Amino acid sequence: MTQKPMYEGKAKQVFATENPDELLVYFKDDATAFNGEKRGTIGNKGVLNNKISVFFFNLLGEKGIPHHFVKTLSEREMLVKKLDILPVEVVVRNIAAGSLAKRIGWEEGRKLPTTVVELYYKNDDLGDPLINDYHIKALGLATPEQVEIMEKYALKINEILSAFLKDKKLELIDFKLEFGVHKGEVILGDEISPDTCRFWDSETGQKLDKDRFRRDLGDVEEAYQEVLRRLTGENS
Amino acid sequence: MTQKPMYEGKAKQVFATENPDELLVYFKDDATAFNGEKRGTIGNKGVLNNKISVFFFNLLGEKGIPHHFVKTLSEREMLVKKLDILPVEVVVRNIAAGSLAKRIGWEEGRKLPTTVVELYYKNDDLGDPLINDYHIKALGLATPEQVEIMEKYALKINEILSAFLKDKKLELIDFKLEFGVHKGEVILGDEISPDTCRFWDSETGQKLDKDRFRRDLGDVEEAYQEVLRRLTGENS
Repeated sequence: MTQKPMYEGKAKQVFATENPDELLVYFKDDATAFNGEKRGTIGNKGVLNNKISVFFFNLLGEKGIPHHFVKTLSEREMLVKKLDILPVEVVVRNIAAGSLAKRIGWEEGRKLPTTVVELYYKNDDLGDPLINDYHIKALGLATPEQVEIMEKYALKINEILSAFLKDKKLELIDFKLEFGVHKGEVILGDEISPDTCRFWDSETGQKLDKDRFRRDLGDVEEAYQEVLRRLTGENS
Repeated sequence: MTQKPMYEGKAKQVFATENPDELLVYFKDDATAFNGEKRGTIGNKGVLNNKISVFFFNLLGEKGIPHHFVKTLSEREMLVKKLDILPVEVVVRNIAAGSLAKRIGWEEGRKLPTTVVELYYKNDDLGDPLINDYHIKALGLATPEQVEIMEKYALKINEILSAFLKDKKLELIDFKLEFGVHKGEVILGDEISPDTCRFWDSETGQKLDKDRFRRDLGDVEEAYQEVLRRLTGENS
């Protein structure tokens, strides 16, 4: 890969392709946390997150959620539809953890009586702050209709993934989604992986996600590997 | 006043009265900022905020906004309807300032293209964090209907106050409201004063509110006095 990426994020590089409607996404092993303050690598993460994301995109596609994934190109590369990314991160939470546990003063692991959806302004310089519909409108980040569609998809995705993962003995604690506009339609973008979701073993409560990296819990690669194994039976 | 307050806040004490439906509110000169990290007193503040709040409650009452104010009892005391306070602070913003300017990375003083309403969890231990409708539902802080009523009143209050203050050469930058339930109805509570609003002189941009205390700008009492003078012509 000698071409320069048109965009480089914390965990992925994005390249133009010959088709102006499609992009190539390359999954790196780089890991960051706390808005870039903590940096490291997780062995094989790029390969694992590419495979896990492909699995989830296919599952969601079958259930009627439109998404950007087109096809796998290599172990670390997928072809996706080109999106105008909406600079709003949508977080869905079933159980208190991470920043929500801090915000509302609940111990981590306490089940929320009702699902919580949060909207964050995708802006590294500002530390991705929590915002609401009024901020989004005033800042022109998305239209009210786009926000409604994102929240509707996010809640449906939560239902689909929670039910599926339960069968795999994984509890879906929370997850972050990003959406974009492709040919006028709001569709799901980014990735769905242990970088962007919290997965806990349903029986032991063991964390099988990026919190192992954030909190120095060890066995980070093994956790990502275990998620893939539960989803597909595959050992990367 | 030898009776013990049933509740003591940062700027006010609340006492029971012989009528179980009514409370006495005593306005103190104490001032705090940054969730209690900065403390001081502002001379005569209790007297000024009592008078300014009475003025605004009467103005809003005439325009159809139900509120807790019953009558003035003394320079520093008002009689109010007893409320079950909803632990949600409602902030309305017309111009970026304070925490919003930081959150969205805008310079203070920049006009927001559309009015922003924010909901905060009234909880000192947590530093009154920003929350949304989903948090309120999950935490059981208020019903969706109560949130809708609070937001509707907040926006109407913004229209009434902004128009009124414009005539007095005051710009209403933002303000915080608290509501409570009295006999089943959501009504406006707390106070409306330079402690809870940002007022800037329309021509000079001079701050005439608690930011003079927060930021050590001097002439704090004079600013509160000037707000009262513009509202009523009265010199406290």
